[in-house]
Amino acid sequence: MAQPQAPEGTEAEKPPLRIGMVGYAFMGAAHSQGWRTAGRVFDLPRQPVLAVICGRDEAAVRAAAGRHGWAAAETDWRALIARDDVDLVDICTPGDSHAEIALAALAAGKHVLCEKPLANSVEEAETMAAAAEAAQARGQLAMVGFNYRRLPATALARRMVAEGSVGTLRHVRVTYLQDWLVDPQAPLTWRLRRELAGSGSLGDLGAHIVDLAQYLAGEQLAGVSALTETFVRERPLAGAARGLGAVSAEGTGQVTVDDAALFTARFASGALASFEATRYATGRKNALRIELNGERGSLAFDLERLNELWYHDGTEPGTRAGFRRILVTEPDHPYLDAWWPPGHGLGYEHTFVHQARDLVHAVAEGRRPEPSFADGLQVQRVLAAVEESAEKNSVYTPIAV
Amino acid sequence: MAQPQAPEGTEAEKPPLRIGMVGYAFMGAAHSQGWRTAGRVFDLPRQPVLAVICGRDEAAVRAAAGRHGWAAAETDWRALIARDDVDLVDICTPGDSHAEIALAALAAGKHVLCEKPLANSVEEAETMAAAAEAAQARGQLAMVGFNYRRLPATALARRMVAEGSVGTLRHVRVTYLQDWLVDPQAPLTWRLRRELAGSGSLGDLGAHIVDLAQYLAGEQLAGVSALTETFVRERPLAGAARGLGAVSAEGTGQVTVDDAALFTARFASGALASFEATRYATGRKNALRIELNGERGSLAFDLERLNELWYHDGTEPGTRAGFRRILVTEPDHPYLDAWWPPGHGLGYEHTFVHQARDLVHAVAEGRRPEPSFADGLQVQRVLAAVEESAEKNSVYTPIAV
Amino acid sequence: MAQPQAPEGTEAEKPPLRIGMVGYAFMGAAHSQGWRTAGRVFDLPRQPVLAVICGRDEAAVRAAAGRHGWAAAETDWRALIARDDVDLVDICTPGDSHAEIALAALAAGKHVLCEKPLANSVEEAETMAAAAEAAQARGQLAMVGFNYRRLPATALARRMVAEGSVGTLRHVRVTYLQDWLVDPQAPLTWRLRRELAGSGSLGDLGAHIVDLAQYLAGEQLAGVSALTETFVRERPLAGAARGLGAVSAEGTGQVTVDDAALFTARFASGALASFEATRYATGRKNALRIELNGERGSLAFDLERLNELWYHDGTEPGTRAGFRRILVTEPDHPYLDAWWPPGHGLGYEHTFVHQARDLVHAVAEGRRPEPSFADGLQVQRVLAAVEESAEKNSVYTPIAV
Amino acid sequence: MAQPQAPEGTEAEKPPLRIGMVGYAFMGAAHSQGWRTAGRVFDLPRQPVLAVICGRDEAAVRAAAGRHGWAAAETDWRALIARDDVDLVDICTPGDSHAEIALAALAAGKHVLCEKPLANSVEEAETMAAAAEAAQARGQLAMVGFNYRRLPATALARRMVAEGSVGTLRHVRVTYLQDWLVDPQAPLTWRLRRELAGSGSLGDLGAHIVDLAQYLAGEQLAGVSALTETFVRERPLAGAARGLGAVSAEGTGQVTVDDAALFTARFASGALASFEATRYATGRKNALRIELNGERGSLAFDLERLNELWYHDGTEPGTRAGFRRILVTEPDHPYLDAWWPPGHGLGYEHTFVHQARDLVHAVAEGRRPEPSFADGLQVQRVLAAVEESAEKNSVYTPIAV
Repeated sequence: MAQPQAPEGTEAEKPPLRIGMVGYAFMGAAHSQGWRTAGRVFDLPRQPVLAVICGRDEAAVRAAAGRHGWAAAETDWRALIARDDVDLVDICTPGDSHAEIALAALAAGKHVLCEKPLANSVEEAETMAAAAEAAQARGQLAMVGFNYRRLPATALARRMVAEGSVGTLRHVRVTYLQDWLVDPQAPLTWRLRRELAGSGSLGDLGAHIVDLAQYLAGEQLAGVSALTETFVRERPLAGAARGLGAVSAEGTGQVTVDDAALFTARFASGALASFEATRYATGRKNALRIELNGERGSLAFDLERLNELWYHDGTEPGTRAGFRRILVTEPDHPYLDAWWPPGHGLGYEHTFVHQARDLVHAVAEGRRPEPSFADGLQVQRVLAAVEESAEKNSVYTPIAV
Repeated sequence: MAQPQAPEGTEAEKPPLRIGMVGYAFMGAAHSQGWRTAGRVFDLPRQPVLAVICGRDEAAVRAAAGRHGWAAAETDWRALIARDDVDLVDICTPGDSHAEIALAALAAGKHVLCEKPLANSVEEAETMAAAAEAAQARGQLAMVGFNYRRLPATALARRMVAEGSVGTLRHVRVTYLQDWLVDPQAPLTWRLRRELAGSGSLGDLGAHIVDLAQYLAGEQLAGVSALTETFVRERPLAGAARGLGAVSAEGTGQVTVDDAALFTARFASGALASFEATRYATGRKNALRIELNGERGSLAFDLERLNELWYHDGTEPGTRAGFRRILVTEPDHPYLDAWWPPGHGLGYEHTFVHQARDLVHAVAEGRRPEPSFADGLQVQRVLAAVEESAEKNSVYTPIAV
Repeated sequence: MAQPQAPEGTEAEKPPLRIGMVGYAFMGAAHSQGWRTAGRVFDLPRQPVLAVICGRDEAAVRAAAGRHGWAAAETDWRALIARDDVDLVDICTPGDSHAEIALAALAAGKHVLCEKPLANSVEEAETMAAAAEAAQARGQLAMVGFNYRRLPATALARRMVAEGSVGTLRHVRVTYLQDWLVDPQAPLTWRLRRELAGSGSLGDLGAHIVDLAQYLAGEQLAGVSALTETFVRERPLAGAARGLGAVSAEGTGQVTVDDAALFTARFASGALASFEATRYATGRKNALRIELNGERGSLAFDLERLNELWYHDGTEPGTRAGFRRILVTEPDHPYLDAWWPPGHGLGYEHTFVHQARDLVHAVAEGRRPEPSFADGLQVQRVLAAVEESAEKNSVYTPIAV
Repeated sequence: MAQPQAPEGTEAEKPPLRIGMVGYAFMGAAHSQGWRTAGRVFDLPRQPVLAVICGRDEAAVRAAAGRHGWAAAETDWRALIARDDVDLVDICTPGDSHAEIALAALAAGKHVLCEKPLANSVEEAETMAAAAEAAQARGQLAMVGFNYRRLPATALARRMVAEGSVGTLRHVRVTYLQDWLVDPQAPLTWRLRRELAGSGSLGDLGAHIVDLAQYLAGEQLAGVSALTETFVRERPLAGAARGLGAVSAEGTGQVTVDDAALFTARFASGALASFEATRYATGRKNALRIELNGERGSLAFDLERLNELWYHDGTEPGTRAGFRRILVTEPDHPYLDAWWPPGHGLGYEHTFVHQARDLVHAVAEGRRPEPSFADGLQVQRVLAAVEESAEKNSVYTPIAV
């Protein structure tokens, strides 16, 4: 693959930021697109370089390297971390390996980007946050990949909340609705086994909405009351599902995670919140929806229409007031000075371009990136409180601080 | 007011159904419109007659009688019940008087229509349901006014659920969002005092969504986990707010009901549900929204767009599937053979026309109307469980049967 | 039908306004609802009385009288006009009889409300407008029934345009889309025959949107360029279709009106407009949609969601600007002080209640009602220019003044 | 810029397709993103290589090369065409230079991709189409860049029309609404001068909707009746506006193109169409909207919500029928097997990735790409007929064949 060289004297002087990425499935593809594009669209202080990709299956990882444009491939993540030509380790594996890889990478002096959820347990997350804190003192940065903060619409919402457009917060309601498990014959995958995925819809979808709700509100949750359910407890084993627990005589295996998690919550300020994460909302494909109601106004967002933010200005006279559809594609909207003219929308993958952009800036400027591992740990504590409440008959359970 | 007589020989033979209505505020106006219109649009077995209206302030009730077209006015509801020319007593007063009036009316041999919530306590509701059961044996009918069952869109949704369009139910999510208390300077009214209103958003809005959710699902809730809040606990006393509890030195009075109520729930079948009732959702005026997700499909409705029902047929190939907007204005949709051509929408008040229609049919045919007082009692038990759970740290609380 | 009397001393002193209505089909039912309700909801200076209804078929008109609550029935409109107990003649017949009835009613000293389109030809409309002008000098009033001006949302739009919220007008685009002729086997009716209906979608739907566009813009059209089409030229004759032109051997008859009419136009100010009226827009039931774009803002409306007006304030900073959904249900929105609380929407038939309200006020106050017969004539001239342009190869055709 | 090499043995064997791109403004950035990404997401038969970029200003073009990842830069398009290491010339310049560059590129044996509109006149377009036809015989391919055919939603719409989901076509209505000229003080640019841009909204926006309407309908327009307008005829000259016609004393220059173009049309089959292209639709940023109504169903699309296609199945029973929102993100939707899971939307720029993908396939397989230069010429003829009709008092003007 003869990738051409840049004309002399242009960007050659930009110091590279060499990425080593572990994992090459869905998240690996999305992160590749982010790293590949960020420096082409934004004027970055360092040029991301797709240095090394890592996966256990040699043929597959080589194919992924070729496809996505990575310069080298490894089959052992320890080898990747040991390389001198890697500045930042990007962890795109399932949650059960996050802690081990991240701790090793930090110990080896690398910056780290870790996919969400940060870990499969609060304990792991605590260790990771402590290691990140120590590494920060050495100039190494660590970030967790809550990419939905990086949409122009959510970033604008955050800005508007911070500017007071919503005022004293009363309500936050959030759902993350998908439907890929509706069919009881859909096969068992690693995502449905607790030992690999940590939890089900809670860690996968719930982690996103807990982070996003707290980010937009600008404050943390104080406690939760929760209810979880596994609707279909036995599923057929697909060919690739080796080792996913005990196999029944009928060739099915057990689902050991939640299918859906609902919880109500209080914010520290006294605002109320409701959360729902499910994979059984027939017809909803990616309905991460959030609404904030405050004394001065309201904001609403739906990931299925990601270029739009709805805003109600409560200070306008009632005669003219109404939820307005802000098409978040103007040049002075977050991230948009680098993209297309008004009305020319972005897509899902742009969150990863923006994540790469923000992290490169943080690294170049030595600033603590957000969301930090400490933020990831706090989300983990919320998820743990949800599970604890669900086990204890939904009793209101404070979030550990 | 010289109301003309009908031409001889037309509808004269239809037996009248003479209504006596107690209360003449918002609900009184809406019920008047319902009784006045039902027999003009639908071909009813008996012709509703606006016989007597009742209120405590003589001048005001006389004005209301003239405005809304009632033939006579009374200032004591006992006098209304005592009249021979009243067949059915329609109770449109605040909840604290429902039980007394309804019991007296049933004792006097009248049919009864009672606004929701049926009562301010489970105990009252139990007495009422028992009295209604006994009266039914004597040929008297009693119905509770959950008018949102009577929209063409919700009635169509019920029909589709019953026909299996949704399949095994997984999720129901319901909100009833209003915003008329957002301003902390909005005055104290009877609706904000427990001794008069029973509860706040819970009884006012929550009762509607509990009834509607169970009606559409075709099954009852088994238990709830709840959280309630009063955001603004002190409000200015308006001139008319005499007697609303102790007055503070500053001329304010205490809010003694909930401003918002959130609860999660399990249906008997195992489906999950979430509920939110609030008067603090800035910009939402009447957002009663309900969505049902099942193994075969989903339905969604929003009262702010009451002529529409959204349906996702989960059995269609994914390539062509999507939530479709059914404009519920076709002649074979519920109630619509009597109204206008397709696309010519109805409004809020039509629920009361349809309620009148359905009740007249039930009376004429001697059938138990739905929702019965027993249904109203069951909703009351759900609300009581919500309050109990909220007091007990949100612990999951089964609904009494 | 023993309609009860009002309690003494209430509204008895209000002078009645006795209505005589000709026609009792769709429009007759809608007007009945309007006359019956207006005085019950609004505080009117005179009380509308449903005095006499008229139709050719005696049994049918008597049934309609009983159903809709008219005191007397006639089978000859001349007899209705001759009655002393009729103050206002309401003409709900097909367009071919409008002129004759209206002229006779005006000659007999009655006020007149005439359904749209005013007439089937410009010549008829001219005679009617001249007669109305002369009658006005004698204190008689005449109005044409463009009911879509009477929606809270369109009335609000008019108010906002008048207040300058849109600024210098650039574009108006209007469609009126229905689909009840899509099926080529739908039968021939009087609406598809030129001698009875005058024209097809043009007079039925086009008249509405021409009036509404001019009303909202606050100015008149200067000229049009048009294209019309009849997609299905032969249709089966239904049983009732006696006398609809020559019958073919196959039992079909000819469609002699347009199925669809499209035209572009210039307003007097130079703003551009586009119009489309059709009965072949599959899936669109009543999609009267209008959008106005001006230098300071835009407004958009869709009759299928009639309680909403969309507004874009072009003077806001782009970062926060967007089309907002005004739920036109606030007490200070047009007509709404008399109805329900915010968020409790109205329906199609309320246009007729509001039309009755406005006309009663005009009659009581001796003011010229709008839209006048002169306004109806001007719309007729626009439709004539559309037909002329369509016949002349779409050449731009000025509207006669 | 040390771009890493791919690991040996992966994609090295894929023959490259070396691109030379002329122009580096908005379209240049979008095409760069397309060429850079296509081979990373899709499995292409040849690997696109960003070989040479060309622009007149040396510093600027070098900066663009570095930013967008082009290997070399030229300042004379003739030099670019003369290079051996360019297989395909991609023309992203204003319309006045399309013909000269394309003809030279074809003469030099290159494949050509030319931005729309194909040319500034029918004569130029005819020469280009003839040259493309001749080149095709030599194995060279030429395509015109109507990128809106390449959205998953529009490609799905085309597929559904071809499969008969719409049936006999009755109506097509299309608008392309933007608002960037609403402010009369917005400066004069090359896009507002006829000698450079050819026309105004007509060539810029109208060309897109004419192509898209014909593509989706699967047939060509037969004739048009048009009306164009320039609302603001004099605008301030910005600094960069050197040479844009005569400068007035006040420092303003003349707008010599249309601000808006409206036209009605007939398709060859007899279906009717309406078109509107404008830069004065306040609040509409990129509202390319198209709706098709046919005897069996309807389709609707809005570029501001580009991941959605609305479909009404006219063969369903009315009780359940309605426009459904197909979220066009399923793996069996066009282009989507290579992207993200359901519900994870794409953006505007993906049209250029898909355009690159389709063109690489066409080149590798020696197939004539669509839309061809002949298709571009036909669109040009429609635009010419629009201008002719507008000059001739909107008279219906057949499209030359």
